[in-house]
Amino acid sequence: MIDINKAIESLNWNKEPRGLYEPIEYALAAGGKRIRPTLALIAADTIVNGGLINGDAIEQTLPAALALEVFHNFTLLHDDVMDKAPIRRGQPTVHVKWNENTAILSGDQMLIEAYKLLSGVPDDKLPQVLKWFNEMATGVCEGQQLDVDFEHMSQVSIEDYMHMIELKTSVLLANAMRIGGYIAGATPVQQEALYQYGLHIGLAFQIQDDTLDVYGDPKTFGKAIGGDICANKKTFLLLTALETADAESKAELLGWLMANDRNEEKIAAVTAIYNRLGVRQAAEVTMEEHTALALAQLDKLPQNAATESLRLLAEQLANRKS
Amino acid sequence: MIDINKAIESLNWNKEPRGLYEPIEYALAAGGKRIRPTLALIAADTIVNGGLINGDAIEQTLPAALALEVFHNFTLLHDDVMDKAPIRRGQPTVHVKWNENTAILSGDQMLIEAYKLLSGVPDDKLPQVLKWFNEMATGVCEGQQLDVDFEHMSQVSIEDYMHMIELKTSVLLANAMRIGGYIAGATPVQQEALYQYGLHIGLAFQIQDDTLDVYGDPKTFGKAIGGDICANKKTFLLLTALETADAESKAELLGWLMANDRNEEKIAAVTAIYNRLGVRQAAEVTMEEHTALALAQLDKLPQNAATESLRLLAEQLANRKS
Repeated sequence: MIDINKAIESLNWNKEPRGLYEPIEYALAAGGKRIRPTLALIAADTIVNGGLINGDAIEQTLPAALALEVFHNFTLLHDDVMDKAPIRRGQPTVHVKWNENTAILSGDQMLIEAYKLLSGVPDDKLPQVLKWFNEMATGVCEGQQLDVDFEHMSQVSIEDYMHMIELKTSVLLANAMRIGGYIAGATPVQQEALYQYGLHIGLAFQIQDDTLDVYGDPKTFGKAIGGDICANKKTFLLLTALETADAESKAELLGWLMANDRNEEKIAAVTAIYNRLGVRQAAEVTMEEHTALALAQLDKLPQNAATESLRLLAEQLANRKS
Repeated sequence: MIDINKAIESLNWNKEPRGLYEPIEYALAAGGKRIRPTLALIAADTIVNGGLINGDAIEQTLPAALALEVFHNFTLLHDDVMDKAPIRRGQPTVHVKWNENTAILSGDQMLIEAYKLLSGVPDDKLPQVLKWFNEMATGVCEGQQLDVDFEHMSQVSIEDYMHMIELKTSVLLANAMRIGGYIAGATPVQQEALYQYGLHIGLAFQIQDDTLDVYGDPKTFGKAIGGDICANKKTFLLLTALETADAESKAELLGWLMANDRNEEKIAAVTAIYNRLGVRQAAEVTMEEHTALALAQLDKLPQNAATESLRLLAEQLANRKS
């Protein structure tokens, strides 16, 4: 049985120059949920009938699965530079531990390493996988740019927001599913079902992320509650509140958006407005819609233990506490 | 006949979000010698017997040729951020015209765009071309890291230096030649000859660059003379001087390396030491050796108009004034 953590650990970064490869090793060793490569492997497993991550077809998926994880960690590394984030997974970020130039250059090399891993995809599958991988990588960069653009825009619709998180988060999960399944021999209908499953769990995942930031349990959430509110981040909750509020609540909310010096008071007040407007319930309805859409895709796939684990995963993601 | 400048201009960057694609368009429109895609096309043309950049085999090389140029411009964009360079090709750099985060993210997207272009390589050639492209991209990043490392090292040998410029400059030219030839049907012996030609003209090119910085004509060179001397850059000339100097000259040279406040005087004094030690002649000998090694490779290729242009190119590069 393939152990994705072991596979990531066994990647060899003991190469020269050390200044280029040490930060890559450090960034990848910090852990994380490894959800993207796991999705690729489970997708493949579903197609070859659920031996649960075993056998030749799954072995063939591994290079692409690793490429997805290295790519994801590359985006985190460069995002942390752009956000000036000091901590990632409980450790100093690369640009803090080394410096910004190191984070830029080692990040670039990580993106190249993702493509090196991708070149381990069987030759007959490589042209299509490379196209999807490029499409995915483009989506993530476009989504990141939209997220930056939103900070400076006074009007962002829920639709704009859904488009942004689809690009920034969902296309990576969707392509992880599609690529894994394709390498294992999925039919076009199955490829599309896997893609749509990934897309919808990604949307549900991101909205749950926004919800936990306000309503999460500080003990299990791992981050400070209310961070998005303090930063005036245009989340699903804020945009829903702005779209559905009556004139009075909207004025109150806009007032708080300009108060950047009273964080605790601001978190309490904005949360109270959210509660009054029922935005948490609206988020839950949207999340459940996307979870249901994801689950519906599974009917188009072979029914086996791997498909069952995809069912559980979709349900867990929507109910997660951290 | 393929016009590489037109092909670059016809790439479509009119996509959303504008904040991501506008800087890419700007960076690529600034021009440059387009030497890498030109080498790929001429290499292909040599193999298909010198119709001079025409016909189906050459058309098939175009996506890879464009990928090489987009990749090269990506490295310039990120290098300029790392070097805090204000000007590139007479225009403000992307991180000055926009900001650093834009330069990082649009640069990342440019690297992805290079791989998107590369996926236009014919399917049967793609696996090998992707491997070489990845090897080339890795070399450039490793070379960049070594160049940074050298700044902080007290001892750098000529051998270290040649290894660095081979990675930072030559592997890109070498792979441009090899990839172009391979797509056009070069045999393994021809592929290797094309690769070695690119490698050696790259080395000659870089040493000529170092020489022009000291001995170039200010009217044609385009940059201020003596920039490398002022910055204590470990060039072929400086490292040769340090390796060949007697104790007295070496002490004098090391003294000037610590004087960072008397630039004009420093340029004159260091140039005088170079003249006394004959480092310019040493550079010319090494350059001629590599030019000869490049030219010798051409005997292994079909002899036609394209091969003749490679002969001229090698001779011109070594004798260029700017």
